[in-house]
Amino acid sequence: MNLILTLRILGALLLFLAATLLAPLPFSFYYADGVWSAFVLSAVICSAAGGLLFAFCKSPKELSLREGFAVVTFGWTVFAVFGALPYLISGAIPSPLNAIFETMSGFTTTGSTILTDIESMPPSLLFWRSLTHWLGGMGIIVLSLAILPMLGVGGMQLFKAEVPGPTADRLKPRIQDTAKMLWGVYFLLTMVETVMLMLGGMSFFDALCHSFATLATGGFSTKNASIAAYDSSYIDTVITFFMILAGVNFALHFQVLRGRAKDFFRSEELRVYLGLIFAATLMVMIFNWSGNIYSAFGENLRFSIFQVSSIMTTTGFGTADFELWPVVTQYILVLLMFVGGCAGSTGGGMKVARILLLFKHAQVQVFRLIHPRAIRLVKLGNRPVDKEVLQAILGFFALFIGVFVLGSLLVAASGMDLVSAGSAVIACLANIGPGLGSVGPTDHFAHVPAFGKSVLIFCMLMGRLELFTVLVLFFPSFWRK
Amino acid sequence: MNLILTLRILGALLLFLAATLLAPLPFSFYYADGVWSAFVLSAVICSAAGGLLFAFCKSPKELSLREGFAVVTFGWTVFAVFGALPYLISGAIPSPLNAIFETMSGFTTTGSTILTDIESMPPSLLFWRSLTHWLGGMGIIVLSLAILPMLGVGGMQLFKAEVPGPTADRLKPRIQDTAKMLWGVYFLLTMVETVMLMLGGMSFFDALCHSFATLATGGFSTKNASIAAYDSSYIDTVITFFMILAGVNFALHFQVLRGRAKDFFRSEELRVYLGLIFAATLMVMIFNWSGNIYSAFGENLRFSIFQVSSIMTTTGFGTADFELWPVVTQYILVLLMFVGGCAGSTGGGMKVARILLLFKHAQVQVFRLIHPRAIRLVKLGNRPVDKEVLQAILGFFALFIGVFVLGSLLVAASGMDLVSAGSAVIACLANIGPGLGSVGPTDHFAHVPAFGKSVLIFCMLMGRLELFTVLVLFFPSFWRK
Repeated sequence: MNLILTLRILGALLLFLAATLLAPLPFSFYYADGVWSAFVLSAVICSAAGGLLFAFCKSPKELSLREGFAVVTFGWTVFAVFGALPYLISGAIPSPLNAIFETMSGFTTTGSTILTDIESMPPSLLFWRSLTHWLGGMGIIVLSLAILPMLGVGGMQLFKAEVPGPTADRLKPRIQDTAKMLWGVYFLLTMVETVMLMLGGMSFFDALCHSFATLATGGFSTKNASIAAYDSSYIDTVITFFMILAGVNFALHFQVLRGRAKDFFRSEELRVYLGLIFAATLMVMIFNWSGNIYSAFGENLRFSIFQVSSIMTTTGFGTADFELWPVVTQYILVLLMFVGGCAGSTGGGMKVARILLLFKHAQVQVFRLIHPRAIRLVKLGNRPVDKEVLQAILGFFALFIGVFVLGSLLVAASGMDLVSAGSAVIACLANIGPGLGSVGPTDHFAHVPAFGKSVLIFCMLMGRLELFTVLVLFFPSFWRK
Repeated sequence: MNLILTLRILGALLLFLAATLLAPLPFSFYYADGVWSAFVLSAVICSAAGGLLFAFCKSPKELSLREGFAVVTFGWTVFAVFGALPYLISGAIPSPLNAIFETMSGFTTTGSTILTDIESMPPSLLFWRSLTHWLGGMGIIVLSLAILPMLGVGGMQLFKAEVPGPTADRLKPRIQDTAKMLWGVYFLLTMVETVMLMLGGMSFFDALCHSFATLATGGFSTKNASIAAYDSSYIDTVITFFMILAGVNFALHFQVLRGRAKDFFRSEELRVYLGLIFAATLMVMIFNWSGNIYSAFGENLRFSIFQVSSIMTTTGFGTADFELWPVVTQYILVLLMFVGGCAGSTGGGMKVARILLLFKHAQVQVFRLIHPRAIRLVKLGNRPVDKEVLQAILGFFALFIGVFVLGSLLVAASGMDLVSAGSAVIACLANIGPGLGSVGPTDHFAHVPAFGKSVLIFCMLMGRLELFTVLVLFFPSFWRK
């Protein structure tokens, strides 16, 4: 591990963060919310820290795989800590733990909040909150389609974006090329959603903030009641549509924009993803109908598909309190939490492709009992999946369940009931936002004990970085030369 | 699949069941409980059905692997159905679904009960109930150490008992040799426990019934309050000791009896199993102490280790209502439910060895990220684990979680709350007995809706037969010539 080089890159990242900390200033001045100085001071602190690191840590070496893990994990951590400065300096969130929770929730596009009254916050801080989602989403797209496949994390090599153009063997140019193209798609979709939400009557500010949160599958809203505050079937429909888009592999979106629309539905993961949303919506609708929650078909469809998409894509926006729905629908939603979006999307969870491959692996194991001599490979989209990749995915699954279990145990030990503790952990580990019980869709995370909050912050980071990226740092041999 | 041969063997099994149905008769006469005719009639029905199948289904063929799956799955099912006859004929359990639930719970050594007042049952029926546990346990030992390894189910080939003596390649003689030796150990331990319980003041009847339930890790008691009814630290200690023994691979017990005691602690699985019981007891004790549940150390140890051992070995006896303990201790117990006993024991769950190998696999996956070119094999007790076996174990884990999730969904859909539905499914799938919520340690399963009960019956069967054995029957290609 080349620590000097790692610190230098973290310095550069802090300088970038300092620049983004100035973005909320126009809103602060426009709304005259009086917290502009908090952003300026935060930017100064970030650029000082970043500048010092960048200037004094000089290394002639190129970035190698091992520093990749450290930069990604520490990068997200540093962002969560320094990104919390505006909340702290302005006094809007006085507790450092709460401020870091909110910022980690932002940058990991989780969307769990410790705010008890969102609408009382200064608008520029709400903008910063939504911006952390959007910046986190930018990071995730590149991470999952360019960086993690190279690092070989959790079978992600399967989802390496095949982006055309000059590809070198060195890490830097390839990542840059991929990033530019995918960010173009991300930016375009955000702009389109903003305009469409404004056509539905949202203010530019609200439309932009909600678009940031949608495309990043984050879930922070500028309203206490989340999307329910608008009570508009048009807005619900637009957001449902863009949430579903945000849960799709961004490399597929890029193919569509290049005119290769037929590649879109050829993706097996995408078909299963859409199939799951359809099937879950149908089941939820049936139970909501038989439970007399919604009597009209249109109303039932509108609220059911919104909640299913919001949870499955790990966004976490709400238009209905699903804790008032039949228990079995909550169970369906909890299951979707574990699944999450497609690989290469901004969605969290275990990812549709991994669940699909797990299922196929189990099926092959049963098949082999009947036909011990037959050779049957696990395939994804007609292409056999490499054994190493499959092993990594099976390992990821075991780890995900293990971290979920251990995390729930620790949060329960901090003094929460079983359903709240377990659902809080999966809500953070899968980067969703709301859970059940005392952290349900109409609640918040402010009351979680400090120890539990710390565990949840770590869960957000672990889940967002596909577990392995964080875990390697705990191996002593990682730090040896 | 040779259906004729399968039916012939099922016929033979029914004739065996008919003989065991006469075993409760002495108790029926001794206690003059008036239900002897129910046993005689049940035995007549069983022997008639068994005799017809055995006489008319003749096949010149030898038993092959494929019939093995069918015999095991249908054998357990047929036992659960025909074994329910005494409850039905005597009128003690009027509902066929309830009677089959109770019998399946017996033969799968689960211990979940639909009885609301156990002590009002005729003694001979209580004896039959405990006997189903003991017979089920006999089946399980042979199944897990001789039959499933040959069928290659879920990585069980790793745990094939290396029993000395003449081994032929054909299925029959090998199973018979293995069975005889392991059953000797099982019988011996049952007798020793019976005597020790009688020394603690239990009647012969109660001591025998509880020994049957202990060695089989079943959990049916003859008392409404389970073991708490005796309120004796001696009896608690004896049962704790034998529960822990019953959760150990019976092939290891056999080695000890052959004078190879040093092989005992050399088993890595055993060491982890005992370590888990120790660690879980310690954690539970700490939380029970800090939660002011038990103030005296001795009392705390007595109740904590009993509940931990009872759940971890999947027995399900109770001496305390752990639903009154701190939430985190319940969480620990739920985790132990998933783990279960050692492979080759009568315990259920995923088995300690599988969890251990899963953990090692995940560790190797993280290690490989740091050292991409290094080769590191997953080992169990210094011996590298075959890749195929590891794949099967990973597949088993995925399937176990999948079945748990699907089962919980179906039981929740039948109208139970999340905690009760989920814990009922794991209690049945891991063959434990009690769960949490409305199916907690002081409750019963009588109130579970009929659909939920059917799902739970299937879960008991699936869990007991290591999932794969049942699942292969759902593949159309299994039935083709």
